[in-house]
Amino acid sequence: MNTIYESIFSHRSIRKYKNQKIPEEVLDRILEAGTRASSSGNMQPYSIIVTTDISLKQELFPLHFEQSMVLDAPVLITFCADFNRMRKWLALNDAPENFDNMMSFLIGMIDATLVSQNVALAAEAEGLGICYMGTTLASNKDISRVLKLPKHVVPVVGFSLGYPDESPALRDRLPLKAIVHANTYQDYTSKDILEHYKEKEVSGMKRYKSDPELKKMIEQYQAENLAQVYTKVKYTKESHQKYSKDVLECLFEQGFTN
Amino acid sequence: MNTIYESIFSHRSIRKYKNQKIPEEVLDRILEAGTRASSSGNMQPYSIIVTTDISLKQELFPLHFEQSMVLDAPVLITFCADFNRMRKWLALNDAPENFDNMMSFLIGMIDATLVSQNVALAAEAEGLGICYMGTTLASNKDISRVLKLPKHVVPVVGFSLGYPDESPALRDRLPLKAIVHANTYQDYTSKDILEHYKEKEVSGMKRYKSDPELKKMIEQYQAENLAQVYTKVKYTKESHQKYSKDVLECLFEQGFTN
Repeated sequence: MNTIYESIFSHRSIRKYKNQKIPEEVLDRILEAGTRASSSGNMQPYSIIVTTDISLKQELFPLHFEQSMVLDAPVLITFCADFNRMRKWLALNDAPENFDNMMSFLIGMIDATLVSQNVALAAEAEGLGICYMGTTLASNKDISRVLKLPKHVVPVVGFSLGYPDESPALRDRLPLKAIVHANTYQDYTSKDILEHYKEKEVSGMKRYKSDPELKKMIEQYQAENLAQVYTKVKYTKESHQKYSKDVLECLFEQGFTN
Repeated sequence: MNTIYESIFSHRSIRKYKNQKIPEEVLDRILEAGTRASSSGNMQPYSIIVTTDISLKQELFPLHFEQSMVLDAPVLITFCADFNRMRKWLALNDAPENFDNMMSFLIGMIDATLVSQNVALAAEAEGLGICYMGTTLASNKDISRVLKLPKHVVPVVGFSLGYPDESPALRDRLPLKAIVHANTYQDYTSKDILEHYKEKEVSGMKRYKSDPELKKMIEQYQAENLAQVYTKVKYTKESHQKYSKDVLECLFEQGFTN
């Protein structure tokens, strides 16, 4: 089995999968690895939904913005912040109620995300591939309905899972000195920013122009550089304001705003 | 070096540290491992603050509720959601602005948390120990001030880091079947809950009663079982409502509510 570093430094997001089932004992082992992650007060305020059913995947497909791996991967995993289980346990023990507020949601969100990363690394060490889907958060209201989530349970992160049928190149990353600050935050000058993003602009633009659909949109929206691809094409202010509204509505409906 | 599973399944939170510095190349390696985690649109909307300065640690000590490891560990790491760097890059490239809303904060929060778990596992594989501090979120308004965070940067998770000077027992976890759901959420009956929490009630209560300070509080607040320890002593509804308000105020002040 790989060392930690072999797994971490060879991570790629996998979007194409073989038509090959994941043995149950492998799935159990990687999920068990998830539950060993640190958890606030050891409350484990999360649930893991393992979806393999075809008709459910078809319902989730548009909510994940029609990403093909939703249908092609044998398994979709949705990690949820979950205080439903804990609140039921509190009630059975005549303990005062809590965990129906924003702080509790955020604690559950952090814990669910830590679990997901343990599961991702364990999966990769088992020869599986994953691709995180940010749409889990953006569509969390509709996904809650499809996955029949009760109150105090909210989808946070999720990924497709299966045996890789592609071997993509390692993605670029900003240099470490662009990310790490000694003692306190050292704000960036314009010169710093231009230097930190220099390589990313080349590799990012090359990557996006090699995708026929994105290339067409880059031309249509007249995105002249990588930064403009991000906020003219991929992530507009309007779309993020809509998602913000949707996510807050989901938190309200699922009982996390008291 | 450890395999993934050796690291994951032997994780303990370490609260006592040797007076021993962490070599710079080790620190760089584990932080670099952090930046290999998946990132939404490969934006890397996070910063890592590495605090070693004594007077800063003393300022952070009360904000982390006087947990001794804040002073004793050689290093405190604070992982922040950060769209400041990206927004500066957008501005320099005449790209439309974005990422000053709740959705952007939550994306940064997820990405920063994924990074933190990679760093935690890499650290443990290097023989270091960590202890996550939920106080990073609860006190994020005041921590932002101490760490001199500009707008669009918010502390999300953090941990102490150093060479372990204790070897605590593995913590209990709920059985996997209490956490994992096939296809859709399978809600819990009272019988399920009592069965899932049976072992936890024994080990949790034993643990808390072995801590002299908590034992006194358990008696003072008349907590009769583990569930009551959670919401009468450790996490009251009032405290979580206050933290919810504080965190939302921090998001407003740091420019994430447009």
